[in-house]
Amino acid sequence: MKQTAAIIGGGVIGGGWAARFLLNGWDVRVFDPHSDTERRVGEVIDNATNALPRLYDAPMPKQGTLVFCDSLAEAVSHADWVQESVPERLATKHAAYRGIQEQTDAGTPIGSSTSGFKPSELQDGAVRPQDILVAHPFNPVYLLPLVELVPSARNTEAGIEMAKDLMRSLGMVPLHIRREIDAHIADRLLEAVWRESLWLVRDDIATTREIDDVIRFGFGLRWAQMGLFETYRIAGGEAGMKHFIGQFGPCLEWPWSRLTDVPELTEALIDKIASQSDAQSGALSIRELERLRDDNLVGLLRALKDRDSAAGAHLNAHESNLMPPVIGGAENAELLELFDVQVLPSWIDYNGHMTEYRYLQVFADASDALLRLIGINQDYLAGGHSYYTAESHIMHRSEAKLGERLSTSTQIIDTDEKRLHVFHTLRAVLDGRVVATAEQMMLHVDSASGKVCAAGRTVLERLGPLASAHADLPRPDPVGRFTGQRRTV
Amino acid sequence: MKQTAAIIGGGVIGGGWAARFLLNGWDVRVFDPHSDTERRVGEVIDNATNALPRLYDAPMPKQGTLVFCDSLAEAVSHADWVQESVPERLATKHAAYRGIQEQTDAGTPIGSSTSGFKPSELQDGAVRPQDILVAHPFNPVYLLPLVELVPSARNTEAGIEMAKDLMRSLGMVPLHIRREIDAHIADRLLEAVWRESLWLVRDDIATTREIDDVIRFGFGLRWAQMGLFETYRIAGGEAGMKHFIGQFGPCLEWPWSRLTDVPELTEALIDKIASQSDAQSGALSIRELERLRDDNLVGLLRALKDRDSAAGAHLNAHESNLMPPVIGGAENAELLELFDVQVLPSWIDYNGHMTEYRYLQVFADASDALLRLIGINQDYLAGGHSYYTAESHIMHRSEAKLGERLSTSTQIIDTDEKRLHVFHTLRAVLDGRVVATAEQMMLHVDSASGKVCAAGRTVLERLGPLASAHADLPRPDPVGRFTGQRRTV
Repeated sequence: MKQTAAIIGGGVIGGGWAARFLLNGWDVRVFDPHSDTERRVGEVIDNATNALPRLYDAPMPKQGTLVFCDSLAEAVSHADWVQESVPERLATKHAAYRGIQEQTDAGTPIGSSTSGFKPSELQDGAVRPQDILVAHPFNPVYLLPLVELVPSARNTEAGIEMAKDLMRSLGMVPLHIRREIDAHIADRLLEAVWRESLWLVRDDIATTREIDDVIRFGFGLRWAQMGLFETYRIAGGEAGMKHFIGQFGPCLEWPWSRLTDVPELTEALIDKIASQSDAQSGALSIRELERLRDDNLVGLLRALKDRDSAAGAHLNAHESNLMPPVIGGAENAELLELFDVQVLPSWIDYNGHMTEYRYLQVFADASDALLRLIGINQDYLAGGHSYYTAESHIMHRSEAKLGERLSTSTQIIDTDEKRLHVFHTLRAVLDGRVVATAEQMMLHVDSASGKVCAAGRTVLERLGPLASAHADLPRPDPVGRFTGQRRTV
Repeated sequence: MKQTAAIIGGGVIGGGWAARFLLNGWDVRVFDPHSDTERRVGEVIDNATNALPRLYDAPMPKQGTLVFCDSLAEAVSHADWVQESVPERLATKHAAYRGIQEQTDAGTPIGSSTSGFKPSELQDGAVRPQDILVAHPFNPVYLLPLVELVPSARNTEAGIEMAKDLMRSLGMVPLHIRREIDAHIADRLLEAVWRESLWLVRDDIATTREIDDVIRFGFGLRWAQMGLFETYRIAGGEAGMKHFIGQFGPCLEWPWSRLTDVPELTEALIDKIASQSDAQSGALSIRELERLRDDNLVGLLRALKDRDSAAGAHLNAHESNLMPPVIGGAENAELLELFDVQVLPSWIDYNGHMTEYRYLQVFADASDALLRLIGINQDYLAGGHSYYTAESHIMHRSEAKLGERLSTSTQIIDTDEKRLHVFHTLRAVLDGRVVATAEQMMLHVDSASGKVCAAGRTVLERLGPLASAHADLPRPDPVGRFTGQRRTV
């Protein structure tokens, strides 16, 4: 059933939440009295639409509906989740909760994007404090998986678990912070670095660009995958974590950082930072910087996803939930239409077209669908047998473009106890043109020995009638052709 | 001309330097009185050999010679660069410099890996203080590009420039820190986070794992590519950096962090951290963690390299120096070894083997490498021409497993102005067995019209000699075979 999220506050963070809900199939209702809300949220959603689907090889759910509302009441009525991202003033947040809880039923959860306030502070004076908790995301909300979930003692176990499940269903990694504290965890760490960096700039030790370079060419690369303690565990080597602390702990007492003071934010210091930042990044607009950041994040996250490591492991878990069920097949003389797919952004190569190995990915998915149809399921695989592809001949006929829907049709050319010879045609759904074809020879094998052997009786009983039905179909022209063979027609 | 680096101190950092110099073609002489030096340095070099070459699509220079020396004198005589990585005690470092400078000529540069001392402190009492400067790298030294170069007023302009050029030639990014300060820049930032993290663990707000998750699922991903200020510039949005500081600056005055205090490193706190770290990472040995870290770093760095962004832009610049000049002469008739790769976790299918479309991905990468070799670069593509693959015939010969290293060799079968007919063989590096082959027909096209047309003169001039050199090679058996064709042998 379609679910609805109410997004209260339409800045960069609210817009990011709107995008994450929408692209994961939720309906979204936004309220923000700011006159520019539609444009601002729209730009964030544009960025998200450009970036988030590239993280996955499965299609995203059908996008939900976005509505901009004229009142808080209109936005929150019938909401399954309310996400509050209004400015960081406690009175403003309390007013928002009053308005929301007047218009919603008991049990409607409210997540706050606050980066600084504790949940108990947010709950103070609320009608139903137990329905409010901190759900603090990180910009860009549609790409970074982390969300700090911070309840107080007034929240219920069930409410917390529900919030965690919901965040996971959006592809996020909820970190349940068990004891509330000002600024939660991440922003305490960030503040420490920000404060020290301001001193370094103020004292002309480094420019903003140099500090950024120190981070992104050095420890930032370590932190993107392991964080702090695991990195230091490695630094401690075989002697271990205790050794590391023994060796490096004393440095804490040295007068290395200026952290005991807060730099005064004079006009002069602010001007210095702003002008250094202009020199560093001013050649690009904020929009261009956002795209650069998002493209890099997609690349980094996909690199981790390929390795099933760190944030990439969570992406893979989410992707397996996005995978569509196989489309059912026919059992008469018609070609089997087993698989369809949309050309995803990450499938595009430097020529602007679907890159060649993705064609084989689609054909392999079609073959897998055929195998499932004839009874090659988990049990059959667990029994130590499977079909392996021995060879494939792919012919490219026209170009597939970003976003195009493609569908396969499959013909069984020949089969015996051991061999399964098939021909797939990949067509664009819109105009029916042939995009590519693949002829594949699959062999039934004993997985342990890797040796070819006869398929099981049940499989052959399903395969036989399909093959017979296809026996009278005309043989497709590319079958039996070799690479580079001249057309005779 | 072959150059020699003397590595004084053979721990993780010294070993990392040894690896970086060696793999970039330098001879390396290591001195460390520790009895275990050969094993420790050897392990780091193993890790580096496994990781660093995977960053580049160009071959690394021929590896230099590694010698373990019995004395400081033996190590440093005739050194072109001395890198000191002895323990962080000023007296130990001063003694090392005395010994080194007794055995070397004036002008022999000494880089110190110190993370804490200022160069003027290191230079105190030295015979030739102007030859000593800080060259502070980051672990793993063979992968992370950053090196903080910190001179004092006693260093010469020429000496600093020489050090920067040398570090660049090793694929590093030297950051010249203009004013010396305790702990330079990166470690000041790291210490701030480390200190705050210790408080969070001590006060049971978060475990070591939770802190790592906050970093690697959140801001660590931002920092790996943009650092702190550019990230915040985006957060400030169109209102700019001044707006951001105005909005978030005041938080610095809030009592968010515990930075004004230093946590006492009691036995109890050390035990707590060590046992949380065991729970988090103890299932993997340090060696396994190092490999995991390195594999992830390679993935992240390659993702940035694909985008020519952040650290990836520096990798590309270094790679262009590694590229063999032009292969015009095609000196011999050897197959082209253009691409190698490791089977990643996401490449494994439900049979436990490398899934079929990933084979085509690897073959397509080999074809792309061939295209780059014959001059199909960004400019050529921007000019509206490219080679498209028209057909591929893949034959699977054996199974590739998780983690296996595979390498391609490519033979040009035939070519004319429009056609490029190639045959790739994919082998397991370990045992040389053939895993799969691919015969591919590529056609040169006008990208706008999609029509086949003759390739440019410069491309044909590079392709011609290669094709001629391959003309006399035996024709591989699978060439010209069709799918399912019976072997005649």
